[in-house]
Amino acid sequence: MNSVAIPALDAAAIEAATARQDSLTKPQGSLGRLEEVAIQLAGIQATARPNVDAKWIVVAAADHGVTAQGVSAFPAEVTPQMVANFLGGGAAINVLAKTVGAEVMIVDCGVAGEIPGPTAGLVNRSQGRGTADFTTGPAMSLEQADEAIDSGRQVAGDLATMGAQLIAPGEMGIGNSTSAAAITAVMTGRDVTTVAGRGTGIDDEGLSRKIDAITRGVAKNQPSADDPWGVLSAVGGFEIGFIAGLMLGAASHRIAIVLDGYIATSAALLASQIEPIVTAYMIAGHRSVEPGHGIALEHLGLRPLLELDMRLGEGSGAALAMSVIAAAVNLHNGMATFAEASVSDRDS
Amino acid sequence: MNSVAIPALDAAAIEAATARQDSLTKPQGSLGRLEEVAIQLAGIQATARPNVDAKWIVVAAADHGVTAQGVSAFPAEVTPQMVANFLGGGAAINVLAKTVGAEVMIVDCGVAGEIPGPTAGLVNRSQGRGTADFTTGPAMSLEQADEAIDSGRQVAGDLATMGAQLIAPGEMGIGNSTSAAAITAVMTGRDVTTVAGRGTGIDDEGLSRKIDAITRGVAKNQPSADDPWGVLSAVGGFEIGFIAGLMLGAASHRIAIVLDGYIATSAALLASQIEPIVTAYMIAGHRSVEPGHGIALEHLGLRPLLELDMRLGEGSGAALAMSVIAAAVNLHNGMATFAEASVSDRDS
Repeated sequence: MNSVAIPALDAAAIEAATARQDSLTKPQGSLGRLEEVAIQLAGIQATARPNVDAKWIVVAAADHGVTAQGVSAFPAEVTPQMVANFLGGGAAINVLAKTVGAEVMIVDCGVAGEIPGPTAGLVNRSQGRGTADFTTGPAMSLEQADEAIDSGRQVAGDLATMGAQLIAPGEMGIGNSTSAAAITAVMTGRDVTTVAGRGTGIDDEGLSRKIDAITRGVAKNQPSADDPWGVLSAVGGFEIGFIAGLMLGAASHRIAIVLDGYIATSAALLASQIEPIVTAYMIAGHRSVEPGHGIALEHLGLRPLLELDMRLGEGSGAALAMSVIAAAVNLHNGMATFAEASVSDRDS
Repeated sequence: MNSVAIPALDAAAIEAATARQDSLTKPQGSLGRLEEVAIQLAGIQATARPNVDAKWIVVAAADHGVTAQGVSAFPAEVTPQMVANFLGGGAAINVLAKTVGAEVMIVDCGVAGEIPGPTAGLVNRSQGRGTADFTTGPAMSLEQADEAIDSGRQVAGDLATMGAQLIAPGEMGIGNSTSAAAITAVMTGRDVTTVAGRGTGIDDEGLSRKIDAITRGVAKNQPSADDPWGVLSAVGGFEIGFIAGLMLGAASHRIAIVLDGYIATSAALLASQIEPIVTAYMIAGHRSVEPGHGIALEHLGLRPLLELDMRLGEGSGAALAMSVIAAAVNLHNGMATFAEASVSDRDS
């Protein structure tokens, strides 16, 4: 393993940033969560004046053998097609990245089908043509689980070298909300029926098949919440392991992480079991309509910034949250203080 | 009165925009409220491809005689000081406007004290040095109420001439959450204790004084929800009347309105009583921590985009929401369709 220790947030920077917030020309606390975010980023970056100009959205794509069980509304061929759409700039995440001023990196962690069209710019971290069907055995070997996490850590190191300050891990993979639900059930101890949702829009029968597949997969592989590598191996996905590693690696380099939806958050459950301090580096970007997502966020002790009924993945909710985070930092650094603006503070 | 009829939203544009949303490379509905916003804007602008490049934040400032009753945590001198801060670019709204790419207009609707420093760029619509204390009589005359609304309509006309596509009315005025609470109590029929909050951060005793002042003001002036001009005259503010007029004027020119916090939303209650169709042009930007704000939004039938525990005013919540609205429009116009990207649609 290529593990680097994750430092604690910087207490002095948090104190200095809090003092600055209280000196700005507004009633104390009146910017609500924007103040919290700016102060958290100060602690992450170990400076009273954080900066998030260098934003990256990293979309990890892979396929899932469990799609054989009829758990998704879309056919598996959509995974490589959407990777081509990302590379061509036509997907939601491309538009959102441009809107918020973020770079996009697309990573093949194990897409099954041929990617149609040119693949220039695609980062190859493929571990094979999709995972195995976890209803009949583990989704991947323990070695593959380790490799998936490790490759995420390595890419975080590359991004740190490039100066990244804020990373939003996104994903694409038909069937991966089934894997996310299985991981969430195991890691939170909640019943499968409470954490499995409709994903991209499956009907009642499909949802029953999904719940059944997860239940059988967990029974077959017997994963334990104490062993996150084992959970990843049993019911996970290559992109989910990659994202967990990306989060651990980002935190070890003092890079803030914006959580996207259910799949990225299931990876956060694994990462936080490996190194609990990683959650201090996380900002929950949004809460999706997937019922398990709120449960996973609650388990992590994180409150989402946005709730816009989204359920797309790709990093889309996190990308949108980046605009709120950027605003929080701009306010923190750009507003005048009471003294600078000669404005009277409150009577008391 | 300078009233122009407000048109209904364009049904053909809504239909065309809905069809476009359903053709984009994402599961239908997976962008949640972003899809709703794009479609609403299509109806407002009467085009399948709306545009919100020309954003304006209009901050209306005025003082309130009811501050004599000790209803605010800040002294009244802060109103002109903050106007100077707006003009100098050091306030939260200046930073947010720059972040979201919006123009800022500052309007003096009736500031009591001298504005310290240069006032270049300040739009003068002053109706006097603050309203009267509404615990002893009406805040303003009926003629002044009419003039306040009319001046807002006129400024909306000016903004329409300048090409504005999205307007966020903001405000500054020590004491104005007391006026907003009084208006909300009258317009929604709710008890004063449920709609009065801590504003910029008043303590328990101050909150008691605030509730008492509103109760006495309503008892003294006997405003009726059927007569919005009468309500504005009885317990309103010059900036609140201006904002109500700005909203009515914007809608008559097919300009979308982003609602900010409690004070702006109290103006929306008056505007919607004058012309109910105006609410079709409104996007609720956020919900503040003021308890009456949620009540007012519910009365209007509007669901806020953001809930970030903000309570600053100035248009700050609406400005932040502009980034979500811009993202919604960019997605609507910039994403590839299934056909363009050769992506398979769902199985069914």
